[in-house]
Amino acid sequence: MSSSDIFIGETIGTAVLILLGGGVCAAVTLKASKARNAGWLAIAFGWGFAVMTAVYISGPVSGAHLNPAVTVALAIKNGDWADVPTYVAGQLLGAMIGAALVWVAYYGQFRAHLTDREVVGGPGAQATAVKAVEAQEKGAGPVLGIFSTGPEIRNAVQNLATEIVGTIVLILAVLTQGLNDEGNGLGVLGGLVTALVVVSIGLSLGGPTGYAINPARDLGPRIVHALLPLPNKGGSDWSYAWVPVVGPLAGGAIAAGLYNLAFA
Amino acid sequence: MSSSDIFIGETIGTAVLILLGGGVCAAVTLKASKARNAGWLAIAFGWGFAVMTAVYISGPVSGAHLNPAVTVALAIKNGDWADVPTYVAGQLLGAMIGAALVWVAYYGQFRAHLTDREVVGGPGAQATAVKAVEAQEKGAGPVLGIFSTGPEIRNAVQNLATEIVGTIVLILAVLTQGLNDEGNGLGVLGGLVTALVVVSIGLSLGGPTGYAINPARDLGPRIVHALLPLPNKGGSDWSYAWVPVVGPLAGGAIAAGLYNLAFA
Amino acid sequence: MSSSDIFIGETIGTAVLILLGGGVCAAVTLKASKARNAGWLAIAFGWGFAVMTAVYISGPVSGAHLNPAVTVALAIKNGDWADVPTYVAGQLLGAMIGAALVWVAYYGQFRAHLTDREVVGGPGAQATAVKAVEAQEKGAGPVLGIFSTGPEIRNAVQNLATEIVGTIVLILAVLTQGLNDEGNGLGVLGGLVTALVVVSIGLSLGGPTGYAINPARDLGPRIVHALLPLPNKGGSDWSYAWVPVVGPLAGGAIAAGLYNLAFA
Amino acid sequence: MSSSDIFIGETIGTAVLILLGGGVCAAVTLKASKARNAGWLAIAFGWGFAVMTAVYISGPVSGAHLNPAVTVALAIKNGDWADVPTYVAGQLLGAMIGAALVWVAYYGQFRAHLTDREVVGGPGAQATAVKAVEAQEKGAGPVLGIFSTGPEIRNAVQNLATEIVGTIVLILAVLTQGLNDEGNGLGVLGGLVTALVVVSIGLSLGGPTGYAINPARDLGPRIVHALLPLPNKGGSDWSYAWVPVVGPLAGGAIAAGLYNLAFA
Repeated sequence: MSSSDIFIGETIGTAVLILLGGGVCAAVTLKASKARNAGWLAIAFGWGFAVMTAVYISGPVSGAHLNPAVTVALAIKNGDWADVPTYVAGQLLGAMIGAALVWVAYYGQFRAHLTDREVVGGPGAQATAVKAVEAQEKGAGPVLGIFSTGPEIRNAVQNLATEIVGTIVLILAVLTQGLNDEGNGLGVLGGLVTALVVVSIGLSLGGPTGYAINPARDLGPRIVHALLPLPNKGGSDWSYAWVPVVGPLAGGAIAAGLYNLAFA
Repeated sequence: MSSSDIFIGETIGTAVLILLGGGVCAAVTLKASKARNAGWLAIAFGWGFAVMTAVYISGPVSGAHLNPAVTVALAIKNGDWADVPTYVAGQLLGAMIGAALVWVAYYGQFRAHLTDREVVGGPGAQATAVKAVEAQEKGAGPVLGIFSTGPEIRNAVQNLATEIVGTIVLILAVLTQGLNDEGNGLGVLGGLVTALVVVSIGLSLGGPTGYAINPARDLGPRIVHALLPLPNKGGSDWSYAWVPVVGPLAGGAIAAGLYNLAFA
Repeated sequence: MSSSDIFIGETIGTAVLILLGGGVCAAVTLKASKARNAGWLAIAFGWGFAVMTAVYISGPVSGAHLNPAVTVALAIKNGDWADVPTYVAGQLLGAMIGAALVWVAYYGQFRAHLTDREVVGGPGAQATAVKAVEAQEKGAGPVLGIFSTGPEIRNAVQNLATEIVGTIVLILAVLTQGLNDEGNGLGVLGGLVTALVVVSIGLSLGGPTGYAINPARDLGPRIVHALLPLPNKGGSDWSYAWVPVVGPLAGGAIAAGLYNLAFA
Repeated sequence: MSSSDIFIGETIGTAVLILLGGGVCAAVTLKASKARNAGWLAIAFGWGFAVMTAVYISGPVSGAHLNPAVTVALAIKNGDWADVPTYVAGQLLGAMIGAALVWVAYYGQFRAHLTDREVVGGPGAQATAVKAVEAQEKGAGPVLGIFSTGPEIRNAVQNLATEIVGTIVLILAVLTQGLNDEGNGLGVLGGLVTALVVVSIGLSLGGPTGYAINPARDLGPRIVHALLPLPNKGGSDWSYAWVPVVGPLAGGAIAAGLYNLAFA
């Protein structure tokens, strides 16, 4: 693959990933969204199918890493770091574009949620009337959770440990995909399996920190949150920002080491 | 494929799509439905599996576009517009047939919901008694949402933008399917992957407008809503009807352009 | 396939289908079940994966019809009725065995639900204490819904229509599977696709009647309900029993005709 | 496969299985978890995708039994018991490691749940504030259900029967996978199908006992529960511990016998 294919593929793919992943967080969080309060299962499936969609769109172009932890783990496994900067640059840019697109798609919902003034109930589902009333309430709190992850209990050691453990599971599943292909053919359906692994991590290990398991997924949207002209948006919690960067990278490296030890 | 195969396949396929897609909206909305209030996750999976079912049924006959945005995007990609009218005619007819079948399958539920008089609790689940009482309440509001989409916040620019963004994701996934097939074989399981992409779009981008992402899916059932002899059905909201037609077509065209630029 | 393979395969397969399908109805309905009130999405996925499991277990032995409507539709399509009685006999016997096994697996839950006396809270989930109290309430109503389907609104014409429409979708998907195999390989993953078609029908068309779409699935368990020594079990609603037999058979025949007309 | 491959693969695979399976129980049970009260559907999908993830990670190394009931059933089917002790030893060790990792990933949540003192609400989702308040309540009850299964109604005969029936379904699906491979190719996607069979068993047969269907899945974490320094953790319910060991082993043996009788 050429460097420009890698950069373009990762940018488009990660933009799709964050558009859909951030989108489901917006959908279940914001006022005047039809999916409001759809629950954790919606979040977990939403992020998993976001990964799947992004993998199928960008896979033929760049191989669909979409995650610096994947890129680093593959570099360790293959002993080749040449394309790492190109991959990571595309991923970070794509994540920022995706986060901005969430804001575009949910523009009115962000306004209604944060300023509670301008909601005009449209026709359609009967839920509209209820939601319009509901939206008259005062602003419903910070929206950082739509962009970036945050811990339920702030404890750097545990938060880091949870992100490391979750990322190890993800990266082991990504690395063993090659072995499964050699069997009798996982083929491109590996993208679907990877998506369901992400659903699994979300359901099982997402409770404490919201499972970044991907530095670009967390850092890119956090930068966009800091830049966007959202009223009453609250802080971007930069004191936590290192955890979902360092944890996944450490998890990726550990998983690659474990793979070379036990599976190669 | 012959023109008659295209027309028949698209008519049957889109009828199945709208029967199942409109069906899940009826199931979670109407009084005296066992699935009432099953939530947004049911809507998103319901529409996704509706796409899957329709794709497998009509795929061998017409290629299963089922969506004018898909047809236009493929025409742009391939530079061949000859079959576009046949595809779109079948899709629109099929969507109308599907919407009418939803009315047939939920005939008593529509009556109970809109007139709240004639419910006679049947045996079976213990929920029946509760539902029969519930159905004594006054009519529960308009049912247009079972047929067509509508915005939670009425803002033409944002509503259009949301439909465009959602459709770009769908069409990129459809167009790259060919590339994934060339890898080591997505094969006909692409229909399943496309279905889960639609689940993803529903979960992540459905909150603001209800994700038409398909002009036939919205316009056909809206016409049927206008024609059906439903009491207290409310208006068909024709002032919004252009958004879910123009948005998806624009999204499809943009996605095809992006594909030719970055993926071809 | 030999007649004994057909009979044994259909008996085992349909027993698994009804054990798992009736099981999920018991799980969400009965007192002292960890899955109580898990909702319609659980019902729809539960029945869909029940089909999938039964198809993979019995497919290599008998071809996994598991449904007289499938058997009849294939007989019409292929013009060969020789094995129909063997298939249907195995299906009916299997459905009865499966329903009896639901009773075995949920024995204490049926007793607690219908007599509300003997619940002794076990350890484990904290939900236990709540459930034990809850189980002290008076018997929670008839349990026929765990065995057989019933309409929310009793109207023979509509109920029949709903069952016919649902079964047409199912049978079209089953019949076109052969065409999809000829493409580039749906293979045995057709079992998974069929399962998701059943999830789709449940979500979209299950609201009015509970989607029998299979005469054996409804009649076999209804017979077992009539025979089992359950206290306060209520009637078996024989006046409705013909609908979920006639409707699916008619739907299967119509789908086979449509297939021969439009797809062959 | 060498003995060391078997031991390492089963240890890693079962650790992943229990980390993700126990993880989803922790996620929906514990205070200060974003997934709290996500419901039974989350539990069933969580355990199913845990199986899928573990199968893809360990399959290429050890064949991914991950369950003594699978190992015993395959030994009966193949008449070869040589590797059974190695498999079971790896499974039990892995299950213990996995349970310990759940404790690591949810360390603060266990503390908050059992001692309700130290929760400091983090930023992110607006749910945080609510959860922090909620966590001020007194300890929310025993946490054994995160580690091991327990019956809703304590009745050794029924509990054993339920575990036997559930395991028969699982093992029949595992054993027939070979037959499905011989058809036209289930291939490594059998791991996905097996996962959905486990979702099915959870939805349909999990209500009475919590579906151990795997002796290592229950016994290993129960030992870890007994050893971990958790305050107010409650007893480990050793009087029930034999049921989820004996039941699944008996179910596996019965299924293998049935397979040899009807399918071989």
